Amino acid sequence: MNETLSQTIRVAFQGEPGAFSSEAARRLVGDKLSLAPCGTFEQMFATTENGLCDYCVAPIENSLFGSVYQSYDLLLKHHLHIVGETNLRIVHNLIVAPETCFEDIRRVYSHHVALGQCANFFATHPDMHAISAYDTAGSVKMILENHERGAAAIASAAAAEVYGGRILMEGIEDDQQNYTRFLLLAREDGGTDPRPMADDTTYKTSVVFSLENRIGSLYRAMAVFALRELDLTRIESRPRIGYPWEYSFYLDFIGHTTEPRVCNALAHLGEFATNIRILGCYERAPKISEE
Amino acid sequence: MNETLSQTIRVAFQGEPGAFSSEAARRLVGDKLSLAPCGTFEQMFATTENGLCDYCVAPIENSLFGSVYQSYDLLLKHHLHIVGETNLRIVHNLIVAPETCFEDIRRVYSHHVALGQCANFFATHPDMHAISAYDTAGSVKMILENHERGAAAIASAAAAEVYGGRILMEGIEDDQQNYTRFLLLAREDGGTDPRPMADDTTYKTSVVFSLENRIGSLYRAMAVFALRELDLTRIESRPRIGYPWEYSFYLDFIGHTTEPRVCNALAHLGEFATNIRILGCYERAPKISEE
Repeated sequence: MNETLSQTIRVAFQGEPGAFSSEAARRLVGDKLSLAPCGTFEQMFATTENGLCDYCVAPIENSLFGSVYQSYDLLLKHHLHIVGETNLRIVHNLIVAPETCFEDIRRVYSHHVALGQCANFFATHPDMHAISAYDTAGSVKMILENHERGAAAIASAAAAEVYGGRILMEGIEDDQQNYTRFLLLAREDGGTDPRPMADDTTYKTSVVFSLENRIGSLYRAMAVFALRELDLTRIESRPRIGYPWEYSFYLDFIGHTTEPRVCNALAHLGEFATNIRILGCYERAPKISEE
Repeated sequence: MNETLSQTIRVAFQGEPGAFSSEAARRLVGDKLSLAPCGTFEQMFATTENGLCDYCVAPIENSLFGSVYQSYDLLLKHHLHIVGETNLRIVHNLIVAPETCFEDIRRVYSHHVALGQCANFFATHPDMHAISAYDTAGSVKMILENHERGAAAIASAAAAEVYGGRILMEGIEDDQQNYTRFLLLAREDGGTDPRPMADDTTYKTSVVFSLENRIGSLYRAMAVFALRELDLTRIESRPRIGYPWEYSFYLDFIGHTTEPRVCNALAHLGEFATNIRILGCYERAPKISEE
């Protein structure tokens, strides 16, 4: 952290002001932050890696859409550490320019992940075409700047407010149990801090590893954790570029890297994994029911 | 199969003629087919389920991009059976209208999965903007019909030929090890056919299941297969809609459902899985090195 150098904490996020990521950033680092909007995920990771920002905030998973592939792949490509997480309730709104009526709408812009969360809305409104754009809030900005006839955007209420859009319909996502999990990433490893004397179940550790392509290899990897009663919260596999049908596995589990059973599990995994990297050890977000 | 009713086999695919899916369809059912282009994946599944087509061909996974979420989710939503698979080498080409030069290009249209496979191309050509469209071949059709200045598309060489486009650059994908695995889906279960006396390793079985959210549940599921020396080729998890951070697991493994150890493994998994469904049993695609 560079808090000694500047009073505010610089946090990079992908999208325009009003994006869900900017709300997640506030939750994760508080209000004394200066937000750095980035055009792409790649830029957001790079600007944090080279020290121009203290943190970046990456969406990693949505409870309707699934994993955000790009974030997983960039975690492997860049050398940032996961130092926190939060679950944000995502409410999607149909937003238009003040002069646009519901009947006028023919094209609806948003990020493809957001469009994917509103599939039922599009199924029941076949005259509206979903058009993929680089950002939710950016779509609101665009339709208001361009005065495009018949255009709408799907984004947060905050985005409508920032750009002066009008919300025609609230909560158009397929299911209200719509949460996105965001990761807080930094150059420095948060796990080196002395661990507060809290319950170990308040921490999560994330690792990525690869395995030999042979019978039972994933079973052995799962055994490493199950035999030590470590609770897995997530497994994701991503293709290894250049090796068709081979995968890197991303695993999140409850526990702190200073716990003996966590150390032992990671050492045990290292005995047979072809490679392994600890992505971070951080405080868990409260369960959704506790929020 | 309705071959007795009509001489040709009706195969639904998503996209326009020239799409990679149409090439996969030819590989899977031969040349005596009539192709039914569908606007969406949902339409393609529905038209096969209601018997208007004999089969559909769904991309399930790409070796650079990863899983095709929509196909996984529609496998669960619809009641089709996987009866075959093929691995298709994907070569992406930069295609323009005959009058367009490389220097003119500002917007490049394609399916977002195809754009994702050409990330390096866009990184080295920052003046070209990637625009997500509903189909690769459909993008070629569109730029040629609309005579849009400064537009290009990314698609197969077949698509360029079908619509009269000009290939400006060949093979612009990030890595040549770029394959898409396609599934052949039908209303009837292919696994009821008497199994030819081939080696059991020439068959694959696909299942989807859910587990109780408790320590070691995925380990137990993996044990079911590993203790019987069944070789897993793929695991994918997809969110359960309405149950944030709970998942359905999709598993592919080598073996035929008539083999005793496969029957036993599935019965064993059924003892503790909260639900389980066999998606299909089918002949494996040859290994890429054997093609």
